[in-house]
Amino acid sequence: MCKQVLEHLTADQPAAIDRLKALLAIPSVSADPTYSGDVAAAGQWLVDQLSAMGLDAQLVPTAGHPIVFARSTAATAPPDAPHLLYYAHYDVQPPDPLDKWDSPPFEPTIRDGAIYARGASDDKGQVCCILEALRAWLVTEKQLPCQVIVLFEGEEESAGQSLPVFIEQRREQLAADVVVVSDTAMWPGPDGPIPAIKYGLRGIAYFDVKLYGPNRDVHSGSYGGAIANPATMLARVLGRLFDDDNHITIPGFYDDVVPVTDQEKRRWTQLPFDERHALKSIGVAEPFGERGYSTLQRLWARPSCDVNGLYGGYQGEGGKTIIPSFAGAKLSFRLVANQDPRKIGAALESWLHSQDVGGCRWQVQHLGQAPPVLLTTDSPFVTAAKRAIERASGRPPVMIREAASIPVVADFKSILGLDTLLIGFGLTDDCIHSPNEKFNLDQFTLGCRTHAILLAELAAARR
Amino acid sequence: MCKQVLEHLTADQPAAIDRLKALLAIPSVSADPTYSGDVAAAGQWLVDQLSAMGLDAQLVPTAGHPIVFARSTAATAPPDAPHLLYYAHYDVQPPDPLDKWDSPPFEPTIRDGAIYARGASDDKGQVCCILEALRAWLVTEKQLPCQVIVLFEGEEESAGQSLPVFIEQRREQLAADVVVVSDTAMWPGPDGPIPAIKYGLRGIAYFDVKLYGPNRDVHSGSYGGAIANPATMLARVLGRLFDDDNHITIPGFYDDVVPVTDQEKRRWTQLPFDERHALKSIGVAEPFGERGYSTLQRLWARPSCDVNGLYGGYQGEGGKTIIPSFAGAKLSFRLVANQDPRKIGAALESWLHSQDVGGCRWQVQHLGQAPPVLLTTDSPFVTAAKRAIERASGRPPVMIREAASIPVVADFKSILGLDTLLIGFGLTDDCIHSPNEKFNLDQFTLGCRTHAILLAELAAARR
Repeated sequence: MCKQVLEHLTADQPAAIDRLKALLAIPSVSADPTYSGDVAAAGQWLVDQLSAMGLDAQLVPTAGHPIVFARSTAATAPPDAPHLLYYAHYDVQPPDPLDKWDSPPFEPTIRDGAIYARGASDDKGQVCCILEALRAWLVTEKQLPCQVIVLFEGEEESAGQSLPVFIEQRREQLAADVVVVSDTAMWPGPDGPIPAIKYGLRGIAYFDVKLYGPNRDVHSGSYGGAIANPATMLARVLGRLFDDDNHITIPGFYDDVVPVTDQEKRRWTQLPFDERHALKSIGVAEPFGERGYSTLQRLWARPSCDVNGLYGGYQGEGGKTIIPSFAGAKLSFRLVANQDPRKIGAALESWLHSQDVGGCRWQVQHLGQAPPVLLTTDSPFVTAAKRAIERASGRPPVMIREAASIPVVADFKSILGLDTLLIGFGLTDDCIHSPNEKFNLDQFTLGCRTHAILLAELAAARR
Repeated sequence: MCKQVLEHLTADQPAAIDRLKALLAIPSVSADPTYSGDVAAAGQWLVDQLSAMGLDAQLVPTAGHPIVFARSTAATAPPDAPHLLYYAHYDVQPPDPLDKWDSPPFEPTIRDGAIYARGASDDKGQVCCILEALRAWLVTEKQLPCQVIVLFEGEEESAGQSLPVFIEQRREQLAADVVVVSDTAMWPGPDGPIPAIKYGLRGIAYFDVKLYGPNRDVHSGSYGGAIANPATMLARVLGRLFDDDNHITIPGFYDDVVPVTDQEKRRWTQLPFDERHALKSIGVAEPFGERGYSTLQRLWARPSCDVNGLYGGYQGEGGKTIIPSFAGAKLSFRLVANQDPRKIGAALESWLHSQDVGGCRWQVQHLGQAPPVLLTTDSPFVTAAKRAIERASGRPPVMIREAASIPVVADFKSILGLDTLLIGFGLTDDCIHSPNEKFNLDQFTLGCRTHAILLAELAAARR
C-alpha cells in the first residue's frame, strides 16, 4: 500500500525542504500588526500550493488573520471515502529576543540535521508534513485515498477568536469523519523520541478576582488591625482554596472529574519519564501537587489551580505604610473531562462570596475558558492511526494526554461533533516560542511519511 | 501664675499669626530635592526667631536636612529648673494635587477662623505654639521657668535618618528631664475637640517577603498541578498568618505584649467614639479584627499585621497562562509594648522557613522598624501637663494612645532614657497630608496658652 507515494516523498525531499524554507521565510507573526501582510502572504502561499495540487483552496478573510480553507474535489478524492479534516496553524510566535538566534529567525538555515527558523516546529514544519503527504498522493496516484478538508489557522499564536466563528458558520462545509491535528510533540524517550497519540487535553477557566476594601489607600498605622485589609483578605481566601493535601476546596469542584483508569495508570507508569530531569530544567527541585497522584496523573488527569499573578498596594522599593484600597489575582484552573468551565466559574464565584472577607467586596472577571477534551482511544480511526505510525516509524505510538489546552479540539467536538487525532512530530527540545527554534529533518521525513500512510490507513478504517 | 505671659499672648496674637504665616510661606517640602533650599530657609527662619528671643540657637547640618537646635542659657533660665526637650518638625508633606487646593498651599490664607496652608497643622502651627509660648515668657518675665532644649527636625515627612544619629551623637547636650512633643491631634468629641495626652505609640516592623519558584515563568498548562507555584504558595503562607479569630499565628508573637489594663478598658469605653462614622469616612462598613477586643483596643493596645502590597506574575489586562518564577509581599506588623521588632523579625523568618512551600525559596528583606512606646501616666510631669491643659482649655485631657508610630519617641527613650509628653493641638479634620490643610486659630491660641502654662507647671513639678 502506497509504496510509490513513499518513494516519491523520498525522491522529492530536496524540493520539499525548499518549499518548507520558502514558507519559513515569510515572517507570519500574528501577534504583531506590523506583520499582518506577511501573515496573509503565508496564507496565500499555502492556498497556492493546495490549488496547484488540484484542491479547491481559498484564503478566507476574517475579523483577524485569514484562514486557509481547502477541500478535495470529486476529481481528487472518491466521494464515498472517509472524510478527514486537517487542522494546523501557519502563524508563528514573535522572534524576539533576536540577538539570541544563531541564524536569523526568518532565514531558514540547515545545520546538524535540523532546519532552524521561527515556526520550524510550531507549526509550519508540521503544516508542510501534511502538505507534502497530500502532494505525494496526488502526484503519484492522481487521487487521495480520503476526502480531505484543510483548515490552517493564522491566529493560533495570538489567541484570535476567528476560528470558532468560522467553524460555527461553516459547520456544513466542515462535515467530516475525524479531525487530524499536527501541532504537538513526540514523547522524549531515553533512546530518542517515541511517537505519540494524544487523547486528552486539559481545559481552562481563567479569572481576574479583585477584592475592594477602603475607598482609598489608608494609613496602615492608623487603621491596622481594625479594618479588613483587601490584600490580606485576598491572600487568606486564596490560601483557603487548598487543603493540606493540595486538594481544591471549592465545593463540587471534583464532582464531574472522570477518574483516571487503572489501565492509564499502568500505561503511564511504564512510560519512560525522567521526572527529576524535567523539573531540574526549570529550576525546580521537587514535584508538588495533589496527594495521592503521580506527576503525570496530576498533569494529565487531575484539575489544578494556579495564581498566575498577584497585584495590589505598594510594589516598589522599600516600604509604604498603607492598607491598599484593593488587591487582585489572576487565577486559573486547568480542567479535566468532564468538568465544565462555566460550572467551575459559577462555583468559584459562589465560593468566593461565601468567604468571610470582613466586608470587602469582590469583583470577578471571567477571562476566557476552554473545555477539557478526552478522546476515544478505541475507534477504528485511532487504530488506523496507530498502524500508520507504527508503519512509518517502526514502533507503536504511546497513548498519552496533554497537560495544556488546545481549545480548537474542544470546538471540533462541541460544534462539529468530531473526535480528533492528535499526532505531532515536534520534539521537546525544539525551542518552540524561544530563540533557535528548529525542526529536525528526520522528524520532517517521519511526519511526511506518517501522514501519507495515515491517509491510506484511514481510508481503510471503518467508521 | 503667668498671668502676664497669657496677657501678652493675647495682645501679641496678630503678630504671632503673621509669624506663623511667614513660616508657612516657605515651601519646606523635605521629600522633594527641589525644595532643599527652602527646607534650610525654614530652619534658618526658626533659628533666627529663637536667637532673637535670647536662646543659643544654631542650624546643624546633617547628611539630609538641617536640624534646628537651641538651648536656654544661664541668662534665660534658672540652672536648677527642670530641663525640657521640645521636639517638633518644620518640614512639610508635598502639596500635590495642587488643583484641589482652594488657596495656594504656600500662600497662607485665613478664612472661617482657620489658617490654610501646607503644614498649618502638621506641624508648623504646633512649632509656632511652642515658639510663641517661649517668646511670651522671655518678653514678659525675661526668663523661662524651665531650662529648655529645642529640637526641630526637617526630615520627619521624608523618613530621614539624621535625627537618631544626631541624638546619639549629642546625648550629653540633650540631657533633660522630659520631652515635650507637639505633633498630634486632640480627640474628636461630639461637642468639639477634647484635649488629649497620648501615652502609647505602636511600633512597626516592615518586611519584603519574596518567594522564588521555577527559574523562569513557565507555562501554567504544562506544569500546573505538578510544581509549587510561588504566587499560590505565598498566598497560602500569608493566609496561615491568621487564625479564624484573626489572631496572628507566629509562635511567640504575643509573648511580650503588655495586656491592656482594666482601667484603660474602662477609660476607652467612656471615650466618645463614633466608630461607624470613623469607618464610613474611608468607605468601610464594619470593623474587622482580633476577636475579643474593641476597635480602640485593637488600634491602641494590640499588635496587627498587614499586607501592604502584593506583586508577582502577570498583572496586566486579560490573562497570561504562567506560573510566575517569583511572587512577593510587603508585610508589616504594628507592635505594642513590650514587643521587640528584632525579635518579631526573627520569629517571622523562622516561621516562614517552617512553612511547607513545596521547595520554593524565601528571600526576606527587613525594611525598617521602630519599637513601640508605652509611657508612664502617673509621673509628676504627666500630672503637671494635665493641670496645664485643664487650666488652658477648661477641661481635663483624656489619656489615650496612638495607633501609628512616632519613632523619635522611642529614640528619646532608648538613647536618652527620657519619657515624652505627647500633647498636640491638631484636629482630625485638619486634612494633614491632603489638600486644604488648615489649623484653626482657636487651636493656635489654645496651643500657645497651653505651652506657656505647661512651662510654669513643669517648673513646679517635682521629678
